[in-house]
Amino acid sequence: MSANTRQRLRDLGFRPGVYETGSLNAITDVAGVAVGHATVVEGDRIRTGATAILPHQGNLFQDKVPAALAVLNGFGKFVGSTQIAELGELETPVVLTNTLATGRAIEAINRFTLAQPGNQKVVSLNAVVGETNDSRLNDIRAGRPTIDEIGKAIAAAAPGPVEEGAIGAGTGTVAFGLKGGIGTSSRRVKAAGETFTVGVLVQSNYGGRLLICGHPYDAPSGHDRDGSIVIVVATDAPLSARSLERLAERAFGGLSRTGAALSNGSGDYALAFSTAEAVRRTRERRTAISSYPDLPNDLISPLFEATIEATEEAILNSLVTAQSTSGFNAATGKVSSVEAISLVRLAALKA
Amino acid sequence: MSANTRQRLRDLGFRPGVYETGSLNAITDVAGVAVGHATVVEGDRIRTGATAILPHQGNLFQDKVPAALAVLNGFGKFVGSTQIAELGELETPVVLTNTLATGRAIEAINRFTLAQPGNQKVVSLNAVVGETNDSRLNDIRAGRPTIDEIGKAIAAAAPGPVEEGAIGAGTGTVAFGLKGGIGTSSRRVKAAGETFTVGVLVQSNYGGRLLICGHPYDAPSGHDRDGSIVIVVATDAPLSARSLERLAERAFGGLSRTGAALSNGSGDYALAFSTAEAVRRTRERRTAISSYPDLPNDLISPLFEATIEATEEAILNSLVTAQSTSGFNAATGKVSSVEAISLVRLAALKA
Amino acid sequence: MSANTRQRLRDLGFRPGVYETGSLNAITDVAGVAVGHATVVEGDRIRTGATAILPHQGNLFQDKVPAALAVLNGFGKFVGSTQIAELGELETPVVLTNTLATGRAIEAINRFTLAQPGNQKVVSLNAVVGETNDSRLNDIRAGRPTIDEIGKAIAAAAPGPVEEGAIGAGTGTVAFGLKGGIGTSSRRVKAAGETFTVGVLVQSNYGGRLLICGHPYDAPSGHDRDGSIVIVVATDAPLSARSLERLAERAFGGLSRTGAALSNGSGDYALAFSTAEAVRRTRERRTAISSYPDLPNDLISPLFEATIEATEEAILNSLVTAQSTSGFNAATGKVSSVEAISLVRLAALKA
Amino acid sequence: MSANTRQRLRDLGFRPGVYETGSLNAITDVAGVAVGHATVVEGDRIRTGATAILPHQGNLFQDKVPAALAVLNGFGKFVGSTQIAELGELETPVVLTNTLATGRAIEAINRFTLAQPGNQKVVSLNAVVGETNDSRLNDIRAGRPTIDEIGKAIAAAAPGPVEEGAIGAGTGTVAFGLKGGIGTSSRRVKAAGETFTVGVLVQSNYGGRLLICGHPYDAPSGHDRDGSIVIVVATDAPLSARSLERLAERAFGGLSRTGAALSNGSGDYALAFSTAEAVRRTRERRTAISSYPDLPNDLISPLFEATIEATEEAILNSLVTAQSTSGFNAATGKVSSVEAISLVRLAALKA
Repeated sequence: MSANTRQRLRDLGFRPGVYETGSLNAITDVAGVAVGHATVVEGDRIRTGATAILPHQGNLFQDKVPAALAVLNGFGKFVGSTQIAELGELETPVVLTNTLATGRAIEAINRFTLAQPGNQKVVSLNAVVGETNDSRLNDIRAGRPTIDEIGKAIAAAAPGPVEEGAIGAGTGTVAFGLKGGIGTSSRRVKAAGETFTVGVLVQSNYGGRLLICGHPYDAPSGHDRDGSIVIVVATDAPLSARSLERLAERAFGGLSRTGAALSNGSGDYALAFSTAEAVRRTRERRTAISSYPDLPNDLISPLFEATIEATEEAILNSLVTAQSTSGFNAATGKVSSVEAISLVRLAALKA
Repeated sequence: MSANTRQRLRDLGFRPGVYETGSLNAITDVAGVAVGHATVVEGDRIRTGATAILPHQGNLFQDKVPAALAVLNGFGKFVGSTQIAELGELETPVVLTNTLATGRAIEAINRFTLAQPGNQKVVSLNAVVGETNDSRLNDIRAGRPTIDEIGKAIAAAAPGPVEEGAIGAGTGTVAFGLKGGIGTSSRRVKAAGETFTVGVLVQSNYGGRLLICGHPYDAPSGHDRDGSIVIVVATDAPLSARSLERLAERAFGGLSRTGAALSNGSGDYALAFSTAEAVRRTRERRTAISSYPDLPNDLISPLFEATIEATEEAILNSLVTAQSTSGFNAATGKVSSVEAISLVRLAALKA
Repeated sequence: MSANTRQRLRDLGFRPGVYETGSLNAITDVAGVAVGHATVVEGDRIRTGATAILPHQGNLFQDKVPAALAVLNGFGKFVGSTQIAELGELETPVVLTNTLATGRAIEAINRFTLAQPGNQKVVSLNAVVGETNDSRLNDIRAGRPTIDEIGKAIAAAAPGPVEEGAIGAGTGTVAFGLKGGIGTSSRRVKAAGETFTVGVLVQSNYGGRLLICGHPYDAPSGHDRDGSIVIVVATDAPLSARSLERLAERAFGGLSRTGAALSNGSGDYALAFSTAEAVRRTRERRTAISSYPDLPNDLISPLFEATIEATEEAILNSLVTAQSTSGFNAATGKVSSVEAISLVRLAALKA
Repeated sequence: MSANTRQRLRDLGFRPGVYETGSLNAITDVAGVAVGHATVVEGDRIRTGATAILPHQGNLFQDKVPAALAVLNGFGKFVGSTQIAELGELETPVVLTNTLATGRAIEAINRFTLAQPGNQKVVSLNAVVGETNDSRLNDIRAGRPTIDEIGKAIAAAAPGPVEEGAIGAGTGTVAFGLKGGIGTSSRRVKAAGETFTVGVLVQSNYGGRLLICGHPYDAPSGHDRDGSIVIVVATDAPLSARSLERLAERAFGGLSRTGAALSNGSGDYALAFSTAEAVRRTRERRTAISSYPDLPNDLISPLFEATIEATEEAILNSLVTAQSTSGFNAATGKVSSVEAISLVRLAALKA
């Protein structure tokens, strides 16, 4: 049941937007970013997991990265939001998981961070956790993933290709009545005379009237339009927290282009961070007046477009790579099954 | 040079979304809403104006309406934002105009309101003004429209059909390198067993890679993607200010579907208000504990979709109804000319 | 080592403000509000705990209460903020605890709520957790309080007198270099012809230059001014979420009057909710258009003053009731000891 | 009727806080800051004016300064807020005036800026205007100050001592039922091994239960507690817009210490900017990736305390320097008169 037996969107001939992708067409095209999955599938009822994204593989608590969160619809349990807004920085791995697992994800992040060399005296840290609700396929009340299972996603984080679809935090998610999951994409853009990469990873679990690069795809009738999406945006451009908030906000442009209903029950969140070493808030820089490069407002628009494009493609990648999945609907208490998007019908859209 | 010699989007065979429109397919389908234009065209250089939207035709200061503002990109001079956020209400006409005319628009609104019968003792009022920058066709530094010209837009406000295109506050605006302007649309939706109307009016002046219901339309090369859009959303559903903020936020979903670049220089604002009499904050209700009906969170999603659809269509209406316009580019100091969207090429998109 | 062997502020002759208190001078003067503590003291190093506040003793998930959060300084790990902001409601007990225990507090709240009768199908809930950092007296890295210990605070919640000082979530907190902890106060005010109660409970753990009703009290030299405060405001006035946000914001007026430094490291949060039955969002009201009474903007100011006064007094109560405590400083790894405020010196301020 | 015949707070023996003041104890202690007043007194009914604050005396539009706005209570007509929030910069003089004059103030700022050498091609600018309501002493509906009168405040702006009391935008304001007006103060603090100045200027027009450095002063009975305050905070410390927002937020700490009721009708705004040349956004820096020094989060707290102290003192200076004033109450239509604070009673507070 490997997720990668299916093709990605571009393999099917669709190309959202105009900018070129990075070599992996993944968030990990942003140098240093690492992604890890823990997929938890057990018996007939457990279809869940966790996905960890690390902005760099050093000590994140000591070498914080600038970050910002944008919220389109706050019906969700995103953890860590107020400190990101106040201090403009990220100091832990980001973990995506299911709605009822955020407490366990905090514990996993805290344990990981407190145990890192150099953090023996740390007494405060701001764990960042996003979630969507996988209860349409997962017995979400059953307490999985556990703290240890979530810890495995953090431990597994690595650069390189990212597995997509029904994996990690996307194991049990549903989008547009179809099997959703984890998707990723990237763009390379020129700004201020330099080339920067914008990478996006999503956990798709929402609804609406699906558009594939503008083409309506008839999703299963009767599906609810609620759910949520968490979007993580990484870039190597040197951006302040204020600029990153603007970048995060643009992710919703990509979300909208997929036909999202932006419904009441959909928690729609976008977190953006910069991996540029020069804007990293190292211990030295945090104890003196230090200078940080900043891509100015007037030159940032190409990164905005790149974020829109990469988000749209990451979402579509989550759909085309995810496999049909059966599980348990925790709200109805019944067996449930969600089909993958049809590659045949996708091909027909191209005709 | 009447704006209505051109057709509207639906006349061309495009139908964004799935909900039915109101009878006028305009913001004025929301009963009580009145719209007035003042178009200011003079010589070779003045191409500007103002558009006024009134939630009802009584005394707005005495009978305030619940309202909320959403800001996607705050590069703009929107006036009145903090009081709307704090008190959740609108107490004056809303005026749209050009970027350098907001002060004159405040004066026009203040004069209108202070002079209304019953307002003799009023000493504080929160004028609400949106703007976009028409300097690509208008000598914006020349001080037009004047206070009196803006006052005429307020005085002209009336229910019924709304003129669209290069008129009022849209006289000199440009979208996607094409002539933009005023556009409007509406949707009727069922929620909580009742039918409600959502109406949208936009002043389009932004850029990106234009999509007509998902179909790419090649806009003129070399156009800048900056500019702005102000979106006004009216509904007769009984909504609290909190719910109206959510409605306003959804307008950006429609904006995104048109291919907006959401660029640095684009001030993207959406203002939403409810005209329902039962949620109006009359003098009596403001001096005692009063009860207000509220469409609950769990039932509001159809209105969100209606807002997305009506915004997309209002924007496209602004493009298809606007006529080619020549004027003066205030930043370059040269004559300029902007073409209308090609109806021939639009027809070809349908083939 | 009972916390209540010390006197409260009024017993010492100080009376912040002008409004009268409720009969208990506690948050529980707001009918229905219940408070529970779990105090975790073990060996030389564990000085921590949890405090739970329940807006009512029914099923909070089914009968949600309107609520809002205000953040003065977001350097903290407050959990549940985005959903409160979006939906304007509270659906679980509020738990206060230490900085590294928020994940366990979520788990405790989730377990409590999922197990309540009537919640068998619940698959999403928004746990609300506030925290301050008790690491100046507590081995905060040691994983206490546990999930079960936090659950005991929820289970212990009861109306009536509230124990204050070094108890529950205040067991190990420090304010102004003195022993802080839990404090509470209330006010009764007239608005719109009715009498309402505003009750406040705080977890004090911050610094500055202490003022006792305007009189400077020389705190120990060399204490750091960081730390945090979480303020919970309850009222029986029928308020919308928008009005509750304004009420929460006023709590910082009371905080400021105590001489707070409002320092970088101090996470300053205020959560407000209304217990009025008529604004409760019951299942019935959430599935139809329902009407809610609302105290209008023009009549709300007395509640604002009451919030300022009750917050100031709750903070001072937390100081005067807390006893000298010795423990372990987790950042330095050394034994530590924090003195209670001197009743003798307080008496001298009155002279 | 010169404002400076009265003494300042320190002359009366009061010293809020512990940090030392700058040499002028004024916002102009921050090098480069210029202040100008236009006082408009005419007949029995006109008691109003404008006050302009310029962060530097170069071309502000070309050399923008980082800035941020904090809003405690948004019942006010503050102009320019959304662009400050989005771009984090100030590009015009800041004008304070009365509630119904904000439109004219925008016009005055626009005319001033468009006419500056180097701004011939400017087609968009974000005028920033604060206001409070002087209608208790001024016939606010009469259209004064005019655009030209406001322009005179900008033209008059100069470094050096700042006139306080019933002058400029403070000509007709009322605080705590006493004559309020313009007040200023400053503090010098060490952070990161350097000495920085924080300067504050206020336009006081609000109410509550007045505290003079903690001592209650019985204000006239029956005064309303509404009104507003605009607080402008300048510093020469190199701060990002994010840090300036935090600084602005702290001004409300000083406001609260004066006994402010923070009432419904009080628009409470604080604008902060940095004058440090190194963080100025010059044309060159805005067209390339440039580096900006930033005082880190961990070292900023002294500036927070300085802001609290200087705000408290600036407010009290506005009261002690303002002279009794008679005028016209525009809401009642009657002659009105407001007494200055009693220096005799202030002296008695010291005893």
